[in-house]
Amino acid sequence: MTVSAINVRNQFRGKVRDIIEGQVVSEVEVETPSGLIVTSVITTRSVHELGLVPGKEVIALVKSTEVSIAAL
Amino acid sequence: MTVSAINVRNQFRGKVRDIIEGQVVSEVEVETPSGLIVTSVITTRSVHELGLVPGKEVIALVKSTEVSIAAL
Amino acid sequence: MTVSAINVRNQFRGKVRDIIEGQVVSEVEVETPSGLIVTSVITTRSVHELGLVPGKEVIALVKSTEVSIAAL
Amino acid sequence: MTVSAINVRNQFRGKVRDIIEGQVVSEVEVETPSGLIVTSVITTRSVHELGLVPGKEVIALVKSTEVSIAAL
Amino acid sequence: MTVSAINVRNQFRGKVRDIIEGQVVSEVEVETPSGLIVTSVITTRSVHELGLVPGKEVIALVKSTEVSIAAL
Amino acid sequence: MTVSAINVRNQFRGKVRDIIEGQVVSEVEVETPSGLIVTSVITTRSVHELGLVPGKEVIALVKSTEVSIAAL
Repeated sequence: MTVSAINVRNQFRGKVRDIIEGQVVSEVEVETPSGLIVTSVITTRSVHELGLVPGKEVIALVKSTEVSIAAL
Repeated sequence: MTVSAINVRNQFRGKVRDIIEGQVVSEVEVETPSGLIVTSVITTRSVHELGLVPGKEVIALVKSTEVSIAAL
Repeated sequence: MTVSAINVRNQFRGKVRDIIEGQVVSEVEVETPSGLIVTSVITTRSVHELGLVPGKEVIALVKSTEVSIAAL
Repeated sequence: MTVSAINVRNQFRGKVRDIIEGQVVSEVEVETPSGLIVTSVITTRSVHELGLVPGKEVIALVKSTEVSIAAL
Repeated sequence: MTVSAINVRNQFRGKVRDIIEGQVVSEVEVETPSGLIVTSVITTRSVHELGLVPGKEVIALVKSTEVSIAAL
Repeated sequence: MTVSAINVRNQFRGKVRDIIEGQVVSEVEVETPSGLIVTSVITTRSVHELGLVPGKEVIALVKSTEVSIAAL
């Protein structure tokens, strides 16, 4: 599946840093070149189908309606 | 409301850069010190209640179950 | 941005059928070859940046954690 | 609990095809009459309370704000 | 559409208290018998199709994966 | 991390009533003073980092875009 663009406005390019694998879902940590860590929880089947392993190049995607804002 | 910590693993501290205000929801752009832009869509009422204006210090929050992963 | 695969398990390939455009978000209807209608709400900026117009080939994507189940 | 209608615009009627059960969440696959597979992740307690087993008639529900769009 | 049960573990039964209607999405406030206010943002088309008006009996539904926790 | 306010319009203050812990995610039940139970699924790492145990004072948070409405 090749897509040219996606509506998701928050895209964090980086490498898989760590994976905590569970029976149904897994926690995947992505580290960007600037050292930012983005944490995702996806199905374990997807982890295997995407061949996710530490070091793999990925993009973490977040739809803007899923982002909350806290005031300091 | 003061909270000491929140489960949300993805927290992006920065300043409001831009707001596109609509009747019901508004798009809020947050810029982190490293120049990363995080886009959020929240209710316009919340924009007003939080006193969000360009330059205001905020944290953009994303729950890890809302983060997808694309392989390159 | 070209991605080879994405973790999102629910992918509905089709054509844009209709767009209701608002100031901040827009409702986009996608019709699959089998006549299934999938409705999405995304930011209006994304509608313009992706060049979405009726007839455009797209994929509607839904993360499995966002799918609820009702029993009949 | 009987509801006459729900705002959720994406409703996929079908039968449970497969369940991968975990301690806290489970992956449930629903197959529609046209052969479309919709994957959901819900709490394992809900799987038991709804009596979900392969062959059970269900509706998979997706709120439109949770649907992303990728251009081809 | 009549469903006997839904996996969504958070169900708040009440009456519509207020609606702020927008072109594409609307904010709907639901008040429970104990005075709790639950706020929802759904498509304006759904508001019309469900015949939502102040006083209407409804259930506000929240999937548990969408609930965050803050420590005090 | 201390925040003065958060855009999330649905805030349910209460105490942790029960936790079902899994490898990657855990189900956390929060009981409000009026006896309302709100169920959340968050990462198990967050459960430990927030020191969540039965009796702990917390706030359950739900963004309004994540709330669906069913008509009775």
